[in-house]
Amino acid sequence: MCPETEKLTGLIAATFTPLTPQGELNLAVIGPYVDYLLEKQSVHSVFVNGTTGEGCSLTMQERKQLAEEWCRQGKGKLDRVIVHVGCLSVKESQELARHAASVGADAIAVISPFFFKPSNAEALRMFLKDVSSAAPQLPLYYYHLPSMTGVKLNVSEILEGIEKQIPSFRGVKFSSVDLGDLGQCVSYCRLRGWSVLYGVDEQLLGALPLGVNGAVGSTYNYAGNVMNGMLSAYEKGDLPLAQTLQVKLKDTITFATSLGFDLAMNKQMMSLYSGLPMGPPRLPLLPWPSDTIQDVVKKLQQDMADLS
Amino acid sequence: MCPETEKLTGLIAATFTPLTPQGELNLAVIGPYVDYLLEKQSVHSVFVNGTTGEGCSLTMQERKQLAEEWCRQGKGKLDRVIVHVGCLSVKESQELARHAASVGADAIAVISPFFFKPSNAEALRMFLKDVSSAAPQLPLYYYHLPSMTGVKLNVSEILEGIEKQIPSFRGVKFSSVDLGDLGQCVSYCRLRGWSVLYGVDEQLLGALPLGVNGAVGSTYNYAGNVMNGMLSAYEKGDLPLAQTLQVKLKDTITFATSLGFDLAMNKQMMSLYSGLPMGPPRLPLLPWPSDTIQDVVKKLQQDMADLS
Amino acid sequence: MCPETEKLTGLIAATFTPLTPQGELNLAVIGPYVDYLLEKQSVHSVFVNGTTGEGCSLTMQERKQLAEEWCRQGKGKLDRVIVHVGCLSVKESQELARHAASVGADAIAVISPFFFKPSNAEALRMFLKDVSSAAPQLPLYYYHLPSMTGVKLNVSEILEGIEKQIPSFRGVKFSSVDLGDLGQCVSYCRLRGWSVLYGVDEQLLGALPLGVNGAVGSTYNYAGNVMNGMLSAYEKGDLPLAQTLQVKLKDTITFATSLGFDLAMNKQMMSLYSGLPMGPPRLPLLPWPSDTIQDVVKKLQQDMADLS
Amino acid sequence: MCPETEKLTGLIAATFTPLTPQGELNLAVIGPYVDYLLEKQSVHSVFVNGTTGEGCSLTMQERKQLAEEWCRQGKGKLDRVIVHVGCLSVKESQELARHAASVGADAIAVISPFFFKPSNAEALRMFLKDVSSAAPQLPLYYYHLPSMTGVKLNVSEILEGIEKQIPSFRGVKFSSVDLGDLGQCVSYCRLRGWSVLYGVDEQLLGALPLGVNGAVGSTYNYAGNVMNGMLSAYEKGDLPLAQTLQVKLKDTITFATSLGFDLAMNKQMMSLYSGLPMGPPRLPLLPWPSDTIQDVVKKLQQDMADLS
Repeated sequence: MCPETEKLTGLIAATFTPLTPQGELNLAVIGPYVDYLLEKQSVHSVFVNGTTGEGCSLTMQERKQLAEEWCRQGKGKLDRVIVHVGCLSVKESQELARHAASVGADAIAVISPFFFKPSNAEALRMFLKDVSSAAPQLPLYYYHLPSMTGVKLNVSEILEGIEKQIPSFRGVKFSSVDLGDLGQCVSYCRLRGWSVLYGVDEQLLGALPLGVNGAVGSTYNYAGNVMNGMLSAYEKGDLPLAQTLQVKLKDTITFATSLGFDLAMNKQMMSLYSGLPMGPPRLPLLPWPSDTIQDVVKKLQQDMADLS
Repeated sequence: MCPETEKLTGLIAATFTPLTPQGELNLAVIGPYVDYLLEKQSVHSVFVNGTTGEGCSLTMQERKQLAEEWCRQGKGKLDRVIVHVGCLSVKESQELARHAASVGADAIAVISPFFFKPSNAEALRMFLKDVSSAAPQLPLYYYHLPSMTGVKLNVSEILEGIEKQIPSFRGVKFSSVDLGDLGQCVSYCRLRGWSVLYGVDEQLLGALPLGVNGAVGSTYNYAGNVMNGMLSAYEKGDLPLAQTLQVKLKDTITFATSLGFDLAMNKQMMSLYSGLPMGPPRLPLLPWPSDTIQDVVKKLQQDMADLS
Repeated sequence: MCPETEKLTGLIAATFTPLTPQGELNLAVIGPYVDYLLEKQSVHSVFVNGTTGEGCSLTMQERKQLAEEWCRQGKGKLDRVIVHVGCLSVKESQELARHAASVGADAIAVISPFFFKPSNAEALRMFLKDVSSAAPQLPLYYYHLPSMTGVKLNVSEILEGIEKQIPSFRGVKFSSVDLGDLGQCVSYCRLRGWSVLYGVDEQLLGALPLGVNGAVGSTYNYAGNVMNGMLSAYEKGDLPLAQTLQVKLKDTITFATSLGFDLAMNKQMMSLYSGLPMGPPRLPLLPWPSDTIQDVVKKLQQDMADLS
Repeated sequence: MCPETEKLTGLIAATFTPLTPQGELNLAVIGPYVDYLLEKQSVHSVFVNGTTGEGCSLTMQERKQLAEEWCRQGKGKLDRVIVHVGCLSVKESQELARHAASVGADAIAVISPFFFKPSNAEALRMFLKDVSSAAPQLPLYYYHLPSMTGVKLNVSEILEGIEKQIPSFRGVKFSSVDLGDLGQCVSYCRLRGWSVLYGVDEQLLGALPLGVNGAVGSTYNYAGNVMNGMLSAYEKGDLPLAQTLQVKLKDTITFATSLGFDLAMNKQMMSLYSGLPMGPPRLPLLPWPSDTIQDVVKKLQQDMADLS
């Protein structure tokens, strides 16, 4: 058995935001969505209003409504509801952090601002600190997504001394392919009892020996079972099976990428695969034709069926 | 004389947002700011809540207060108040567009969303169209800033047929160094009586023979006189003088760049140079030490004094 | 009339390298190529073995044969034969520089190495200096092509004090869209009697008011007449005509870009348009189907015919 | 025990190229270099004339001399001498491939051309095929280094059907952080009995569960012992030790990076650490001051000593 993986807290679904055909919030879907994740995907935690949830395309009011509904529907059912409260405006992030605390979120996460980028680690720590000050009792995670934010600061540098500035700091959602940085990040966090949640679904297997504590991603909405199987295989030392399961998820994504994979496609895949009506994406994302989605979901079903 | 430059509508200052030392809006500065631009810099129009104004770091409420105050203070004094209403959320952009109309803005401008990026020109046109629909009577400009948004679509492609979708479309704030695209953009806009406002201050001279109608930029806050002189020299056919004036502005920026030029430095330069208290930048930007600012402003004063 | 443009030395064709259908050098084409440029395009100078000439895809021996043949065929006909001698290996560049001197080239040009990149301006100056030392009597130009080399150093920084290190330094082939840097570069070069040759064909008009001395580019192989017309229009102050001619070239390139424009397409366009058999590109470039080339050349012929 | 790792063929040193203080080849160092790798680092194979060896900064003649000397000195001592023969010119690559065969290299490797980049996988396969045809009996590896070449093609796409075009194809030196692509690449290669050698030293631990067969890198010149220890720990299932050893190497690199880590620094570190006189780097790389090197090597010695 490969040690250290006992600590794995399992998969966390980065949730999609259900909209009506007219593009308004469709909160009625959240309840069934919770049940679907638990019953069909064995996924017990969620990450709300992040990239997958089109958080930045929503209004403040919409983000609050979603956070509240997820906390309400998840109560007593989900292990953890982590609410992403990152905004370009630190004041708006503070408002969302306060709100998350008021509705009973288990933790908050904050992405780096990405129009004006922090010029060094201290600027980013100060931004995170200001957000944390609005909800000092809530565990705070830094959400690291350099491929979309363009913020190239190493996480290991950002963490340096952060516990002194942010007492509520509890870890990182690490969505980068730089596993050298990840290794240093795990070393730092482990000593302090914090969590490192890995966020690049198609290479989760590579992050496991570095000692991550869990994983957050959009594909766990529909590939939760298969990826839970991958984690089990890894923990049992059955690497051939772990590799096979990991590669199958990547095969689906590669196929989707050949058709133009983006969040809109991802969201529509979820609707067709799960039966939950996620609705259209919001602009600037455009919906895909249904036959494209049917092709991708056919491939998804094949890859998932072979293996679970 | 070089023809076509008669159409030049002159310089438009991309305004900074004055904050108190505590980081709150300092609306009392707007009135004197208007007078400073008119009297000291011969700049008669403003672009509010854009990149220079830290628009994306402000709350919705703050953006509205600023738009309102600029319209009030500029009334009867300024030629044009253009309010930037771009947001990552199309719904929030619509709200700001409605508000801009209600307070008497002369025009609105919209940057492309840049977290999720439009995958093609049609997606961006649809986004702009939805914003315009909230203020159909206001002239709308597309604000093209690929170096910060990462949106690589050519403007000439975005413009194709846009008049059918957006009756209020009136032109482009073109902040890109791609002058081949600019030339095609001018051709398209000129036929329809629209404006192309150039937005890369340190190379405005290169955009003039392409036929732009004006220029928007942050440096016109303090280099308005010198750059008005550059425009005059160009119009009179005195290229050596135009070159000298253009290069001097670039010299200032090159010096600032060697020290780490960013919007925070730019804002502090404006405070020291103009005497108007712009206050600190907002996070994630960090203020610079005052001696750095003194060095840069000394260089700025030299470059501007030699030439005006 | 717009002053300073009297100094314009006109257009320089960045030449293609003629190959046989089997992919070997086809030196017999060089003689007719010289005549074509002079008689059909009114282009009187050439830039050999550069990007357009697939210099880096050729062997050392091939580069020498081409340099020699261009010098022989151009003797008494062409104003200037500039031989590009840049290589990743400084020793190979030196060998080519020595050879260029031996066959009577008028000048040499050197691109920055681009696998290992110079970490600062001094490293690049030292590289250029070592090359120049192998042919100290030949004027040397720095060839600035950041879009392909990834070397982001400003030219104005590279030039600083270069005359002390490289007595034979004579100017820059400036193939960048950064016209702020170009303005500073022209200031520096003009004082020393050096030349700045602009290298982004589709926006040459924007570089003219900055005071460049000429232009080097691949499109002048087939658009020499039209772009000579553009230069004349600019010198006469007829900006509308200059704009029209410049935009037409850009229109051709935009159309080609929509089909996948690359150097292979460019080379095949030249063959079909001029009747000179340029032959296939060399790997890793792949030839395009002839019907694609026919479509592009049809567009090229229309754009050129309308205007010359 | 974690299965599949039994196949690990161990570490391969990407060798530096020894130069005299005057910058000429110093072939006399190769013999002692072989012994050092075997005796002090337990590294039994080498990769010659690659990135670490400044292959592209050398002349053709120098590359041949080095290939020959490594084969001669390694005969009967080293397990494998892999000679990198990639050039921008396919013809020069062919010449080097022929030469590698003639001096008894065990395999050749070829990087993608990176000035003109292959526009699709087929163009790259054709380039590799042409090189292989000059040494059809030698195993050929594709050398994937997208961070330096800018070639973004996925390896899994490049491999598709490559065995039909290149009978001598035997695997990939995979120097990318995209472990999703790596997983697919391993699947493809394993079925055909080919090897995947991982090339990002500071995250080798993450590549192991994906099933790679070995590793090639510059740090194995001085961290061979420690990284051999990391491999052993991983094979025994002692992940905490494997993590600690991997993170220590990353710590050294992070420290070096804070000082400006590049190949020149790397080469000088090797000289001071090993006592082998590697000499200066070649332009455009510049040597570092000796006190910088002393600082880095002190850190290196500490990190390596703590752990081996």
